[in-house]
Amino acid sequence: MGRLTALAGGVGAARFLDGFIRVTDPSSITVIVNIGDDDEIYGLYISPDIDTIIYTLAGIADDVRGWGIRGDTFNCLEMLSRYGVETWFRIGDRDAATHIFRTMLLRRGLKLQEVTDIIRRRLNIKVRVIPVTNDRVETMVLTDRGLMSFQDYFVKRGFQDEVRGIIYRGVDKAEPAEGVIEAIMNTDGVIICPSNPIVSIGTIISIKGVREALRETKAKIIGISPIIGGATVKGPADKMLKGLGLEPSAYSVAELYRDFLDIFVIDEVDVGLKDKIEKLGIKVYVTNTLMKSIEDRVRIAREVLNLIFNNINVK
Amino acid sequence: MGRLTALAGGVGAARFLDGFIRVTDPSSITVIVNIGDDDEIYGLYISPDIDTIIYTLAGIADDVRGWGIRGDTFNCLEMLSRYGVETWFRIGDRDAATHIFRTMLLRRGLKLQEVTDIIRRRLNIKVRVIPVTNDRVETMVLTDRGLMSFQDYFVKRGFQDEVRGIIYRGVDKAEPAEGVIEAIMNTDGVIICPSNPIVSIGTIISIKGVREALRETKAKIIGISPIIGGATVKGPADKMLKGLGLEPSAYSVAELYRDFLDIFVIDEVDVGLKDKIEKLGIKVYVTNTLMKSIEDRVRIAREVLNLIFNNINVK
Repeated sequence: MGRLTALAGGVGAARFLDGFIRVTDPSSITVIVNIGDDDEIYGLYISPDIDTIIYTLAGIADDVRGWGIRGDTFNCLEMLSRYGVETWFRIGDRDAATHIFRTMLLRRGLKLQEVTDIIRRRLNIKVRVIPVTNDRVETMVLTDRGLMSFQDYFVKRGFQDEVRGIIYRGVDKAEPAEGVIEAIMNTDGVIICPSNPIVSIGTIISIKGVREALRETKAKIIGISPIIGGATVKGPADKMLKGLGLEPSAYSVAELYRDFLDIFVIDEVDVGLKDKIEKLGIKVYVTNTLMKSIEDRVRIAREVLNLIFNNINVK
Repeated sequence: MGRLTALAGGVGAARFLDGFIRVTDPSSITVIVNIGDDDEIYGLYISPDIDTIIYTLAGIADDVRGWGIRGDTFNCLEMLSRYGVETWFRIGDRDAATHIFRTMLLRRGLKLQEVTDIIRRRLNIKVRVIPVTNDRVETMVLTDRGLMSFQDYFVKRGFQDEVRGIIYRGVDKAEPAEGVIEAIMNTDGVIICPSNPIVSIGTIISIKGVREALRETKAKIIGISPIIGGATVKGPADKMLKGLGLEPSAYSVAELYRDFLDIFVIDEVDVGLKDKIEKLGIKVYVTNTLMKSIEDRVRIAREVLNLIFNNINVK
């Protein structure tokens, strides 16, 4: 089997990768992760998508909640609330260790990708995990209540506000991290995980050279739709698409990826969109994409692997 | 009752103050705390003596262990050890909140005394707690193994090394915090808590103007010996005195304080030192100074109050 590269946001990607590492050689996989919703909380540098991916790959993620570490306690946060600080971003005690360790290394001058690599190695993760950039890019959400950071929009306000626009603040100056472009160009398959097309994948492909690499690579590019039957399994992707004037559907996601996507994996309930998506020049593979159980995840991972390596006829 | 000022290190002082606040109006008390063993661990600014005093005054201290918060968990630290960092400094999860909060405010440009004041207010502490200085002074211990920070000497290596000298690094440039000199000059009584005379009280009285204020104030100055029968109840004071060529005894402590001390409270087992100490020009009050129970602490606090306000004959 060859090399594989995945573009990933948070939970949706983590669930897919959880199955994927069970049917592949993890050391052949590179995951390029969104950092647009990184934030500094209590002076600690938080990388929500990297943490979700890392915890999942290490087998310690809280899969039910969709964030943080399984069985974590919240005593530090409880004490912080006694000090009167806002605690809407739920940092567990074990989770805090990651933020403390990361912040310490960043302050020592290490790059985010170096820190991420140390963290994943210490947690015995074989998959290579790279933040898409070492520079700060902030996904800002323009809402009826004004411009806010993604965490403010998503966690603090529970994505209740109407979305009017997205700004990738800092994206014009951000350079792709070392290995990002190469991981897209020199690989056998690129997987666009079922992540938010606007804030997760959207940020990744906004970084200088990434979208161009996706267009130019000879590797097969397979996306998995994060939208099933017009809604997201988790998170605000559907609301965001709507806010930006797009239909919240697998078709809209395909449209956003039309310049580089070879095959799009959509759910059975969306089979009616197949023809429409194919007219964009994208092949469509229809399956049950809801990844509830480990079995679901492994099955989908196998199907994606087949699409990449066996030239399965996707009609 | 009038105003009172205490000079304090860690555990010994905390135990005394624990009784003292039960027999006085806490809002009439100012505690000036040592910061010489402050350290930065994982990029977090740690103030062990301030924390011990604050947690004790807030009624949440782990009195048995002598550090940290009662009933605290150590999940953050356990996770940090998975990241391969040293975890000999045992930071609990709730305790970590204090360090995170303090570090955040310091990085925003607040002074240590401002941060300390915010922390004690948020924990509903009526006693005014002031670090002796806002500047960094590091108590370095010169041992047979070289020069090391106090935490390295005390916690990491369990004070096993022979002490050859003490260096108050930075003390020449350190200014007393706002209110320190005034709290000594304009008060009715100054209490030198039963703390390490070398590293706790020693650091405090090394700060510019503090020793002079103690000599000049009209307030009665009462010290409580941290040495009972030639040994400390907790900590390395006896070993340090020996290392510096001094007899580890209440007498040696009295000698170190001879230029400002009015009355020295010593333990019954040290009654034989009474005459010798009095020859230094210091009055001596003999009592049971071991502060095991709350009752012990309250009794000693009452005795000290009597010495300050009732001109008890200490003969």
